[in-house]
Amino acid sequence: MTRRRIGLEELEDLAIGAAVLGTGGGGDPYVGKLWARQRILDRGPVELLDVDEVADDALVVAAAMMGAPSVIVEKIPGGSELLAAFRAVEQACGARADAVMCIEAGGINSTIPFAVAADLGLPVVDGDGMGRAFPEVQMVSFAAHGLPATPMAVADELGNVTLLRSVSAEWAERLGRALVVAEGGASVIAQYPVRGRDLKLAAIRGTLTLALQIGADLRRAGRQSRRAIEDLTSRLGGALLFHGKIVDLRRETASGFVRGAVDIGGLDRWAGSSCQVTFQNENLVAIVDGTVLASVPDLITLLEEESAHPVTTERLRFGMRVFVLALPCAPLWREPRGLAKAGPRCFGLDLDYVPFERRLARP
Amino acid sequence: MTRRRIGLEELEDLAIGAAVLGTGGGGDPYVGKLWARQRILDRGPVELLDVDEVADDALVVAAAMMGAPSVIVEKIPGGSELLAAFRAVEQACGARADAVMCIEAGGINSTIPFAVAADLGLPVVDGDGMGRAFPEVQMVSFAAHGLPATPMAVADELGNVTLLRSVSAEWAERLGRALVVAEGGASVIAQYPVRGRDLKLAAIRGTLTLALQIGADLRRAGRQSRRAIEDLTSRLGGALLFHGKIVDLRRETASGFVRGAVDIGGLDRWAGSSCQVTFQNENLVAIVDGTVLASVPDLITLLEEESAHPVTTERLRFGMRVFVLALPCAPLWREPRGLAKAGPRCFGLDLDYVPFERRLARP
Repeated sequence: MTRRRIGLEELEDLAIGAAVLGTGGGGDPYVGKLWARQRILDRGPVELLDVDEVADDALVVAAAMMGAPSVIVEKIPGGSELLAAFRAVEQACGARADAVMCIEAGGINSTIPFAVAADLGLPVVDGDGMGRAFPEVQMVSFAAHGLPATPMAVADELGNVTLLRSVSAEWAERLGRALVVAEGGASVIAQYPVRGRDLKLAAIRGTLTLALQIGADLRRAGRQSRRAIEDLTSRLGGALLFHGKIVDLRRETASGFVRGAVDIGGLDRWAGSSCQVTFQNENLVAIVDGTVLASVPDLITLLEEESAHPVTTERLRFGMRVFVLALPCAPLWREPRGLAKAGPRCFGLDLDYVPFERRLARP
Repeated sequence: MTRRRIGLEELEDLAIGAAVLGTGGGGDPYVGKLWARQRILDRGPVELLDVDEVADDALVVAAAMMGAPSVIVEKIPGGSELLAAFRAVEQACGARADAVMCIEAGGINSTIPFAVAADLGLPVVDGDGMGRAFPEVQMVSFAAHGLPATPMAVADELGNVTLLRSVSAEWAERLGRALVVAEGGASVIAQYPVRGRDLKLAAIRGTLTLALQIGADLRRAGRQSRRAIEDLTSRLGGALLFHGKIVDLRRETASGFVRGAVDIGGLDRWAGSSCQVTFQNENLVAIVDGTVLASVPDLITLLEEESAHPVTTERLRFGMRVFVLALPCAPLWREPRGLAKAGPRCFGLDLDYVPFERRLARP
């Protein structure tokens, strides 16, 4: 059993490590860190709770940001909307929450819950609904287990608070996205209120301690970025897919998402090759010289060569040197019920899912 | 003091008369009549209550349809969503409603409240928030008096129920419209929960008895449509602006509204003249031979020559012979606080409001 507290130092590692798992999405780690920092300074460190430590009848609610990451880095929150969203879901449940959780891993969405938790004096659960980041509300382990996304609240910095009760997680996505777009492209949400017994059944466990470890490893790497990245990849059962320099970038913010593709020209053993990574908030598919090497739901993460820091899709820029990694997704996402929520076809891709390890093992 | 009951016969007159006041919007009277008919058949007539009969601390909630009228005529309700929206607002207010009200006059939005009222055994108030129909949530007498539009609920036929708490009626419009569009273009809403004392202060009084009277007059007209229309116009202090045949129609359903313009070629004393009426759900401006004769917030209503029935904007069709009427709006809309909510500039028109009586009196 892990019992630890997340203070300012841990927050730095968490933001970076979660952005690695955020696979291009889940929000910028710098903005994410700033968000929770002040609350922890004011209220002190936040306790991290193992999933098994949560009582069966305890109420756990996820807090997150919804919208296009490209908007999130520019639309600064007012401060009270997170609490307003959280309180609205509590009220709809007729109970106070006993703990806060992250719905996904990401630079912002792994740190926002600590701001709420610090304010309310609640612990944060060491687990989430994805073990990575996905762009849509229904792409969550709880939904794959048949648990409802709503009551879900959407709140903006002006003071608008909307409570959704939808017939499916897909409808929570559709209606929530419409609200977020109307509110300027990014808003805060509280969603997936679950009881402890359902949390134990459906959460992806240990995501935060994993993110903390990844963040600490990369921080210690310093200038030895390539070595650190290779060590990390190997430890996580991943594969280094490509190394190169960004030579083209198409990126559009519309309908509450960032969508596009980045082209990377190869360096060292990939010289003469090219890699394309497509994205919808998160990276979706990595293609090298026309061959798909990895796809959702596996994790595709870009790390900047200079700093060994993860690069979110809204921070991609021409000329940046990056490593492209594939990391295995949580086992749930490789099951039929996981692929039904977050397989390649859920993103409109005409592609069957094959684990990246099997794709790479092909002659 | 009027005390009367609305049964099936009154419903017919109400739907037609309210569509006259609906000034092209507020929904089709045929669909509106069907909506309430079954509920009144099942539960019996509904009591109509004078505004002054409502107790000061009684809670009154408006029920309506929101969206493009062109969608409303095709998207048939599931039946329970009206009650779901109404209940959601009651719950948010922490009290049961004592009466139902119409937010506007219109073929659907003057009859929907009777469906809710019949179900719940509540009276309907003889007054509304417009005395006509307007397309947007903030264009309401209660908003002009500074009263909030929310808590407001939006519900669809699938079972999705969303509760908005917005910082202004304008934000309720923006967020509500986004939800309605995501739900297919039309949904039911409950909104503007007001206490009796505020109702007495801000409601446009007598709208329903006026609609009933107009409907009865037109029903009795039979084939004497022109005479009936002239009598009606004169009795309501209005003016007959034009008589002609529809020769062109541009109509688009987008962003939750029907927008467009209809061109009418003149007959009898208007032979050789042409009239254009522009609309956003409701008719906005009537222009004859290049001169504006009437504009919002005054009422511009088209009546079909053959039947003397009002023509809603989604029912306009090439070749239809129509009379174009201007009727005076409720006095509130001619005050600065009324024009700030529903004057021509609120519709993006570069036009100062001049009452149609003054426009017609010009040499």
